[in-house]
Amino acid sequence: MSKLRVSIIGSGNWGSAIAKIVGKNVEKLSQFENRVNMYVYEEMVNGKKLSEIINETHENVKYLPNHKLPTTIIAVPDLLKAVEDADILIFVIPHQFVKNVGNQLAGKIKNTAIALSLIKGFDIAEGGGIELISNVITKHLQIPCSVLMGANLANEVADEKFCETTIGCHNPKTSLILKELIQTPNFRVVTTEDVETVEVCGALKNIVACGAGFSDGLDLGDNTKAAIIRLGLMEMIKFVEVFYDKNHKLSTFFESCGIADLVTTCYGGRNRKCSEAFVRTGRNFDELEKEMLNGQRLQGPETAAEVYHMLKCKNMEEKFPLFRAIHRICIGEIKPKDLIDCIRQHPEHM
Amino acid sequence: MSKLRVSIIGSGNWGSAIAKIVGKNVEKLSQFENRVNMYVYEEMVNGKKLSEIINETHENVKYLPNHKLPTTIIAVPDLLKAVEDADILIFVIPHQFVKNVGNQLAGKIKNTAIALSLIKGFDIAEGGGIELISNVITKHLQIPCSVLMGANLANEVADEKFCETTIGCHNPKTSLILKELIQTPNFRVVTTEDVETVEVCGALKNIVACGAGFSDGLDLGDNTKAAIIRLGLMEMIKFVEVFYDKNHKLSTFFESCGIADLVTTCYGGRNRKCSEAFVRTGRNFDELEKEMLNGQRLQGPETAAEVYHMLKCKNMEEKFPLFRAIHRICIGEIKPKDLIDCIRQHPEHM
Repeated sequence: MSKLRVSIIGSGNWGSAIAKIVGKNVEKLSQFENRVNMYVYEEMVNGKKLSEIINETHENVKYLPNHKLPTTIIAVPDLLKAVEDADILIFVIPHQFVKNVGNQLAGKIKNTAIALSLIKGFDIAEGGGIELISNVITKHLQIPCSVLMGANLANEVADEKFCETTIGCHNPKTSLILKELIQTPNFRVVTTEDVETVEVCGALKNIVACGAGFSDGLDLGDNTKAAIIRLGLMEMIKFVEVFYDKNHKLSTFFESCGIADLVTTCYGGRNRKCSEAFVRTGRNFDELEKEMLNGQRLQGPETAAEVYHMLKCKNMEEKFPLFRAIHRICIGEIKPKDLIDCIRQHPEHM
Repeated sequence: MSKLRVSIIGSGNWGSAIAKIVGKNVEKLSQFENRVNMYVYEEMVNGKKLSEIINETHENVKYLPNHKLPTTIIAVPDLLKAVEDADILIFVIPHQFVKNVGNQLAGKIKNTAIALSLIKGFDIAEGGGIELISNVITKHLQIPCSVLMGANLANEVADEKFCETTIGCHNPKTSLILKELIQTPNFRVVTTEDVETVEVCGALKNIVACGAGFSDGLDLGDNTKAAIIRLGLMEMIKFVEVFYDKNHKLSTFFESCGIADLVTTCYGGRNRKCSEAFVRTGRNFDELEKEMLNGQRLQGPETAAEVYHMLKCKNMEEKFPLFRAIHRICIGEIKPKDLIDCIRQHPEHM
């Protein structure tokens, strides 16, 4: 049996952290080829190409400084060369770039290859609905796409602090291969076939985090914040039920991709932080993003707008009063202090 | 139809907060009698009886200062007088006192009465197992006992900040009466028939909070803490499955009594705080309790010991590696830093 060749598409903070794990595992495991191409979007760092710096120093000095990447990881600035002959394609790029990358790769991938998406967020479908990133990948590449989501802040993963993650994958054999490729003593993998739920959780949690941030900004206290997080989770479940897999399992929401990621995001994440500042300062999200996030993007308000659009089209707003209120606050249609009035008569309390 | 008479047994911080809610609701609702006796364990405050202070000033100056109780609430220092002719008995006393109160009330209660327990924690059964507080109440009083649990820090409830709670009740009619008695625009009630799950959640969460505190004390970061909280929740579910209602509903763990209370306790509660200090200072829990909690009791280490005893008797330790590790750390059998090694091969990851 020939060895499986792995490629990583993306080399940001999260991409480099996962490269550290994958690069070590392929060294140890005989079923994988001992070299992993990592596609690097080329840029100049202190007058030198980032891909060259990575290959010489084995460090992504820009996006994951102070961590050595295994020597099995090779930075490749040419996208098509990076994925050549790959059996496993790990996608870990910002969600805005997925379609473009998909277009470039279409027809250039082995038809037996499999994809794994670590990308959080939705894509906008033609006509304005929401499309799952894994679907976009599958459409362009004509290969199945699994997903990996969880309470996984990249720097802590790179520090090899203990955590869990969830892989959603329809095929049990593929599932096992991906688990072998990704799991380490400190990065524990639970697999599930409930793929859509895993992916939807990763996108919707950022909306809820905005609600948690508003609650913090309004000084509403621990009980109220807990209620907002819980009602957010209930709307996440309802969203999957209404728009995605009717046969989803409730237990998937107990995985790392569900409550664990949600809670971490609502207590520590950047959407929470900016939303708190939104209330306290009265400034808009564009300004706050520029000032507070040092180039990182804020996904919550954008995802809230996309989800709201979908709810409105399907005449489903009433069933999601928290998501709706968060969107309306984000765009300035109502005041943050109106949040609680919007959820007091939540369907959950009927 | 005669009006329902309500008695509240207990007048601490939580008891007084719930009295504020119940006292207002009976004023408005015709199905309840317009006077609620609240049993007050008599003590002297600045040379005056607490019950007299409450009845004169309508303020529990010792346990819930700066909040006016409705005039419908009457402090009664005699237990038997307090419960006279009661149709609904709300128990909100420390769990250590339940048997004693139960013994005093045995045979003195209407046989048509119903009980509602707000008490968190387990009682020790004869022979050393665990007994649910609601069972203790039912055994002594021969009446059914419902439970109320949720992310409900008493002071925030008294401040009328928005929150949710869960009532577990077997009888749909009783359920409705209790919801009417307790719900307000800011205290939202969800009812379920899954009574044991609701009650078990309220006790076990304190064990998990110790784990969260150890993680904080060890500076393990957000991902690890999220994993500990999640694995704690999975062991809570397993515990109900193994020892209680085989027909429990997974959805109950999504209620306020489940994840919401767990998360609040793991980020804000006193068990978390003392467990962090336990790691940072190396001192034992008895000392920390005295120093940090101003007379309040720490339930986590005690509940962990009771649960461990039960797991050991049933030869079930292996299935609950987190609960076991937390207990062993609490009693000094292993070091806090060994926590992660104990859960790395968790059954959830197999």
